[in-house]
Amino acid sequence: MTAALTLDPGFSTAPLASVFSDVARVAAMCRFEASLARASSRANLVPAPVADRIVAVCRTGVGDPDKVLAEGWEVGTPVLPLLDRLRARLERDDAAWLHHGATTQDVIDTAMVLQTKDALVVLRVDLLAVALRLRMLAVDHRSSPAAAWTLLQPAVPTTMGRRMAGWLSPVVGHLTSLRELAVDLPLQFGGPTGTLHGLGESALDVADGLAADLGLSLPDVPWHTDRTPVTSMMDALGRLARTVRSIAMDSILLAHQGAVSMRAGTSSSMSWKRNPIDSVRALAAAEACAGAVSIVSRGGPHELERGVGGWHVEWLAVPLAFHTVGAAVEALRRAVESLTVIEDPPEAGRTPATDAFVDRVVRSCDLETSL
Amino acid sequence: MTAALTLDPGFSTAPLASVFSDVARVAAMCRFEASLARASSRANLVPAPVADRIVAVCRTGVGDPDKVLAEGWEVGTPVLPLLDRLRARLERDDAAWLHHGATTQDVIDTAMVLQTKDALVVLRVDLLAVALRLRMLAVDHRSSPAAAWTLLQPAVPTTMGRRMAGWLSPVVGHLTSLRELAVDLPLQFGGPTGTLHGLGESALDVADGLAADLGLSLPDVPWHTDRTPVTSMMDALGRLARTVRSIAMDSILLAHQGAVSMRAGTSSSMSWKRNPIDSVRALAAAEACAGAVSIVSRGGPHELERGVGGWHVEWLAVPLAFHTVGAAVEALRRAVESLTVIEDPPEAGRTPATDAFVDRVVRSCDLETSL
Amino acid sequence: MTAALTLDPGFSTAPLASVFSDVARVAAMCRFEASLARASSRANLVPAPVADRIVAVCRTGVGDPDKVLAEGWEVGTPVLPLLDRLRARLERDDAAWLHHGATTQDVIDTAMVLQTKDALVVLRVDLLAVALRLRMLAVDHRSSPAAAWTLLQPAVPTTMGRRMAGWLSPVVGHLTSLRELAVDLPLQFGGPTGTLHGLGESALDVADGLAADLGLSLPDVPWHTDRTPVTSMMDALGRLARTVRSIAMDSILLAHQGAVSMRAGTSSSMSWKRNPIDSVRALAAAEACAGAVSIVSRGGPHELERGVGGWHVEWLAVPLAFHTVGAAVEALRRAVESLTVIEDPPEAGRTPATDAFVDRVVRSCDLETSL
Amino acid sequence: MTAALTLDPGFSTAPLASVFSDVARVAAMCRFEASLARASSRANLVPAPVADRIVAVCRTGVGDPDKVLAEGWEVGTPVLPLLDRLRARLERDDAAWLHHGATTQDVIDTAMVLQTKDALVVLRVDLLAVALRLRMLAVDHRSSPAAAWTLLQPAVPTTMGRRMAGWLSPVVGHLTSLRELAVDLPLQFGGPTGTLHGLGESALDVADGLAADLGLSLPDVPWHTDRTPVTSMMDALGRLARTVRSIAMDSILLAHQGAVSMRAGTSSSMSWKRNPIDSVRALAAAEACAGAVSIVSRGGPHELERGVGGWHVEWLAVPLAFHTVGAAVEALRRAVESLTVIEDPPEAGRTPATDAFVDRVVRSCDLETSL
Repeated sequence: MTAALTLDPGFSTAPLASVFSDVARVAAMCRFEASLARASSRANLVPAPVADRIVAVCRTGVGDPDKVLAEGWEVGTPVLPLLDRLRARLERDDAAWLHHGATTQDVIDTAMVLQTKDALVVLRVDLLAVALRLRMLAVDHRSSPAAAWTLLQPAVPTTMGRRMAGWLSPVVGHLTSLRELAVDLPLQFGGPTGTLHGLGESALDVADGLAADLGLSLPDVPWHTDRTPVTSMMDALGRLARTVRSIAMDSILLAHQGAVSMRAGTSSSMSWKRNPIDSVRALAAAEACAGAVSIVSRGGPHELERGVGGWHVEWLAVPLAFHTVGAAVEALRRAVESLTVIEDPPEAGRTPATDAFVDRVVRSCDLETSL
Repeated sequence: MTAALTLDPGFSTAPLASVFSDVARVAAMCRFEASLARASSRANLVPAPVADRIVAVCRTGVGDPDKVLAEGWEVGTPVLPLLDRLRARLERDDAAWLHHGATTQDVIDTAMVLQTKDALVVLRVDLLAVALRLRMLAVDHRSSPAAAWTLLQPAVPTTMGRRMAGWLSPVVGHLTSLRELAVDLPLQFGGPTGTLHGLGESALDVADGLAADLGLSLPDVPWHTDRTPVTSMMDALGRLARTVRSIAMDSILLAHQGAVSMRAGTSSSMSWKRNPIDSVRALAAAEACAGAVSIVSRGGPHELERGVGGWHVEWLAVPLAFHTVGAAVEALRRAVESLTVIEDPPEAGRTPATDAFVDRVVRSCDLETSL
Repeated sequence: MTAALTLDPGFSTAPLASVFSDVARVAAMCRFEASLARASSRANLVPAPVADRIVAVCRTGVGDPDKVLAEGWEVGTPVLPLLDRLRARLERDDAAWLHHGATTQDVIDTAMVLQTKDALVVLRVDLLAVALRLRMLAVDHRSSPAAAWTLLQPAVPTTMGRRMAGWLSPVVGHLTSLRELAVDLPLQFGGPTGTLHGLGESALDVADGLAADLGLSLPDVPWHTDRTPVTSMMDALGRLARTVRSIAMDSILLAHQGAVSMRAGTSSSMSWKRNPIDSVRALAAAEACAGAVSIVSRGGPHELERGVGGWHVEWLAVPLAFHTVGAAVEALRRAVESLTVIEDPPEAGRTPATDAFVDRVVRSCDLETSL
Repeated sequence: MTAALTLDPGFSTAPLASVFSDVARVAAMCRFEASLARASSRANLVPAPVADRIVAVCRTGVGDPDKVLAEGWEVGTPVLPLLDRLRARLERDDAAWLHHGATTQDVIDTAMVLQTKDALVVLRVDLLAVALRLRMLAVDHRSSPAAAWTLLQPAVPTTMGRRMAGWLSPVVGHLTSLRELAVDLPLQFGGPTGTLHGLGESALDVADGLAADLGLSLPDVPWHTDRTPVTSMMDALGRLARTVRSIAMDSILLAHQGAVSMRAGTSSSMSWKRNPIDSVRALAAAEACAGAVSIVSRGGPHELERGVGGWHVEWLAVPLAFHTVGAAVEALRRAVESLTVIEDPPEAGRTPATDAFVDRVVRSCDLETSL
C-alpha cells in the first residue's frame, strides 16, 4: 500500500514542486506517447489520422495522475495504468498503435528528462540571481579591506571584493555547466530490450523524429542501463550543492565574526537572537542534495537489459536532488541579497592581484546572456 | 518560498505517511508543550490551573500545520508560529508560561523522537510478518535440496531451509535492535544553550517529570549537538535496509534461475513478462533509505551549542529514512509472502549442519513476543 | 598487476599500521588454520599428531605475506597461495587435513575478526585517554563561565564544564559500545556454501571448538552473506568518527574565538600563525573514516552463497576505517591533552543544571575500569 | 605518531602506486618550487643565478620523502620540513627566495594536480585497451543472437554486438571526458590568503609564468577554497567506476547464465569452481572508488581562506580514488580481454536497429587517436 511521500517544506520551492508534481510527471509521459505517434506517422508507420487521434487523447491527459503512479507499483509499471486510461478513450484499432515499439523505460526516462529540462530553467534563474548579486558585491567592495582566516586563525588580510570573486567564480562555472547539460539532454528510446524490436526498418526514422519532436538529442545507442546521462546531471547538482554549502558556511562565519550582516530569524527562547536563517536553510538543503545525489552515484549496477531497483530508485532520487538543490540556491539567493558588508577599519589587504582577480572573474561572466 | 516536497508513492506506506504527516508532526510539538506545562506544574513552577489551560489549548492543536512549518523557515523556527497560534488562545498571563524554559530544539527534537516511537511500531509489525513468513519457509523446506552459487557460479548444494535460515537470522537481529532502540528513546530538554537557564533549582525536576510524562528516558545531559541518538537510529535503519536489499536481490536471482516463484508484474511491451516487482520495489526503497541515512551519517558537525544546517537537515533525513525503509520492508513482506519454492530434483545438499542451522535460528527467534 | 596501496601517513598510527600489516593479516589466517586443526582433532576428526604438525607449521607462518596477498588476486583467493606454502612443508597425508571442511571466506573473515579484536584494544586505549582528559576538564571547569553560540550567533552563556560534559558524554557512550562489540565478535565457519559440507556429524563440534579456541562467539548460522556483524562494527566506527569531528570542530571554533588554546603548528608563509593542527588532522581523518564506512554501508548485496565484489571490498574498507578512525582519535587526544581554557571574565552561565549535567556525566563514566 | 597506511594490493596497480608514491609526491612539490623560482626570475623578481641555484637544489630533491610527509603532521604542513631540507643546501641569501610568495596550499595542490596529470595517462591507457577490446567484440558479434533479460527475467532477444555496443558507448564517453579534464588542469597559486600578497606588481606575471612552466592552465582566481576542480575530477572517476561496475556485473551475470566464458580463478574448497575473479576484482575496486570519491563529494565546506580538515582529507581521497579506479579498469581489461562469447542457438534478436546501434557506437569512437 504505497502512499505519497511528503517532506518538510523547507527543502523545495514552489516552482520546483510544480515541475516535479504528479500532474507534471504524468503529463510528460503523455507527451512522450503523443510525440511517438507523430514520429511514427511521419515515418509512415502509423496512419496520420490515427496519430492525430492519439495525440488528441494524450494532450487531454488523465485526471488522476497520483493514482496512475500508485497503481504502477501494483502491476509493475505506471505506464500500464496510464495506457489503460488512454486506450479506454481510443477506438480499438487506434489503441493498438499507442505506445507502439516503446517500452516502459522509454516513457519514464524521457519524461524524467523533459522534467529535468524544465527544472534546469528554474534552477538557473535563481542561480543567475545569486551570481548577479555576488558580482555587485565584488565590484562594490573591490577595495574594501577585510580580515582573513586560514584554518580559522587570523591570517594576512584580503579585500571583500576578492572574497566575493572567490564565491562568484564557481557559481559562474555552474551556470555554464548547467546550460551545457540543458542543451544536450538525450531521448530514451530502445523498445523492450534496446533493439527497437518491432519497428523494423522504420526504427531509426521514428527515433530521429521522436527526438526532434521533443527537442532532445539522439544518442548513438539507448542508455537503458548506461546511466551516465543521469549521473552526469546528478554530479553537476552535487557540485553546485557543495558550492552553496561553502558560500553559506562562509557567510555564517563572517556573521559570527561580525564582518557581514544578513536577514535574520529569531529564537523561541532568545528573542534578541539574529540567526542567519537563510544560510542555515541553504546549508541544510545542500546537504540533503548531497544525499540524494549519492543515491544515484552510489547505486548498484543496472543489470543486463534493465536494472532491478537501481533504475526505479532514480524516480525518487532525481526529483529529490532537484528539489533540494533548488531550495538551497533559493535560500542562498535570499542570504546574499540581504547580505551587507560591515566595513573593517582600513588596513592593508588590497594588492594588485586582488584587484586583478576581481576584474578577471567579473569579466569572465557574461551573466546578461547566460540563460 | 518553500513548498511541500512530494515524491513517488512507491517509497512510503500509508501508515508511515500518517506518522510523518504535517499534522502528526505539529501535534507532537503540541504534546511536548502540554507535557512541559504539566511537569512544570508538578515541580511547583507553574500554577496547576495555568498548566491545565495550557494543556487544553495544546490538546486542540492548530488547524494549519503545513503553514506552521512553512512559516518557520521565514522567521527562523516553526516553533515561533506554533507558539503564536497557541498563545493567541491563552490569556496573557498564562501565555507567559507556555514553552517556559524550553527552546526550539527541545520541541523539535522531542517531537521527532515521539514520531520515531510511532514509526518503529509500524516498521516492526511489517518486519515481524517478514520474519514469520521466513520462519515458515525455513521450517517447511528444512530438507528441500537447493542448488547453491558462490560468486554466482554453481557450488555444492544446500537446502532451501538453510538458505531461509540465513535470510531469517539478520531479520531477527533487526527486530531485537529496533525493540531496544524503541524502549530507550531520549527526551531532549536543555533550554537555549543546554543549561536549562531560567528554570533555576527546579530544572531537573521539570526534566524528570517531562521525560516521565512523555514516556521517554532522561539522558545525563541534553544532546543538542551530540547526535548519537539520531545516528544510532539511522544506522540501525541503514543496516535493516541493507538486509532487505540482500534478501530482495537473492529472491530475484532465484527467480532468475527458476528456483522460486513470486507475485509478478508485467511489462508495457512484453505482456508475458513475470517481473519480480515487489522485490524490485524493496531494492529501490532500500537504496533510497541508504541515501537518507547518509545525510545524517555523512553530515557535518553540529557547531558549539546548536548546529547550522546539520541539525535542520535531519527534519528531512529522518522521516525520509523511515518512509523508505518502511516501504522496503512492506514490499519485501509482499515478496516473501508470495514466494513459493520450486523444488529441485532431490540431490545431496542436506547436512547435519544445515538442519542444525535452521533449528538454531528458528529457536532463537521468539517472534510471538517480539513486539 | 596488483601493488601495495600506500597513502598519506597522517591517516594511520603506528599501532594500527602494525595490526593491519600484511604480516599480521596472514598470521591471523594461519591462526585460523591452526585452530581448525586443533578443533578437528578434539572432535576426533583429525588424529592428534597430525593436528600438532599442522599447528606447528601454521605457527611458523610464511615468509612472504605480501606475495601471498598479491598472488591471491591471480588465482582467485589468497588462501590458495597460503595453503600451497603451508602444504609444501607437510607430509602429503597431513596436508590433506589442512583447511579440512573450511572455505576461503571462513579464513579471511575470521582473520579480519581477529585483527578487529586487536584494533579495538588500540582504539579504546586512545579513546580512554580522550575521556580522561575531558573528564578532568569538565571537573576543573565545572563553574568556569563560558560564552555560548547557537547557530554560531551569541547566546546565553554556559560553563566550560558543561560544554566539556557535552563532549565527554558521547565519548563514554562509544567506549561502552566498542567494549560490547569487542566481547561478541563472531567466528565465521560454514564451509563452501555455509552447510559445513564435508564435516558430517562432527560439523558443529568442530565449529564449537574452533570458536572457543579463537575466543570468538559462535553465531546461530554462518554469516557469509549476512554482513550485519561487519556493518555493525563499521557503523560504530562511523558514529565515533562523527563525534570526533564535532569535538574537533568545536575546539577549532573555540580557538577561533580565543576561548581556548591548543598545541599549534605554523605556516610556510605566515610564521606567526598558530594553526590547530591536531584538531585539523582529527577532522580530516574522521571524514576519511566516514568514506571508508560508507564503502560497506552503501555496498551492494552479497549474492546468494557468496558475494561478488561486495565481500572483497571489505578487505580494503574495514582496515581503512580502523586506520582513519584511529588516526582521528589519536589526533583528538593530542588536541584535548594540549587544550587549555582561556577564562572569560566572570558572568552568569552557571546554573544548577550545568553543575548537575557535569556531575551526572562524570559519575556515569567508570573510566578506570572501562578497558 | 603517524604511520604509512598500506592496504590490500588488489586495489592499486604498479604504475599508479608509482605515480602516487611518497617519492613522486615530494618530487612534484620540488617541481613547483623550481618552477616558481624560474617564473620569478623571468618576472625580474629573483636574480637569474639565484633561481638557477634553487632549481638545481629542487631538482636533486630530498632523500627521505616519507619522513617529510610524516613530520608535516607534527608542525602543521609537510612543506615546512621540505623547505628546511632544501634551504639547508642553499646559501642564506638564496634560501630567502625559495617559496617566495607562495603558501603551503599552492605547493600541495599543484603537486596533486601534477600527479593527477600522470595518473590520467596511466588510466586512459588501460581504459583504451578496454574500449578496443569491446569494439572488437561488438564488430565480431554484430549479428550474434543473444538472450536478453529485463529485471533479470527473460525478454525478447538481442545481439551480442548490440550488448557490446551498450558497454562500449559509455567507455568512449569516459575516454573523452578524461582527456578534456587532462588538458585543462589548473595551477594553484594564491599566496597566504589568495591575494598573492608579497609579490606586488609582479604577482600576475609570476602566476602566468608558473602556469606556463608547469604546463597547467591559469584560472581567473586561486581555488584555495573552491574545490570544483577537485570534485569535477573525482566525479568523473566516480562515473567511470560506476560504468566499470555495470560491465563487470553484466559479465558475471552472463557467465552465470553460461553465455560467456572468462579467465577463471578457483576456490580453496571446490577445486572445480570457475570464479570470474577479474570481474569480481573490478567490482570491488570500483565500489572502493565510489567511497573514495564520496570523501570529497560529501566533504564539508572549506572555511573562509583555507579549510580545516576538508582540504587535508583530499590528500588521502584523491590518490585513493585513482588507485582504486585504476585497479578496477585494469581488472576489467583483463576480464574483457579473456571474455569469449558462447553462441546461443540462432534465433531472432538481430534488428535493423541493433546493427545501426553497433555501427554508430563503433564509428563514434576514434579510438586510434584518443590518447
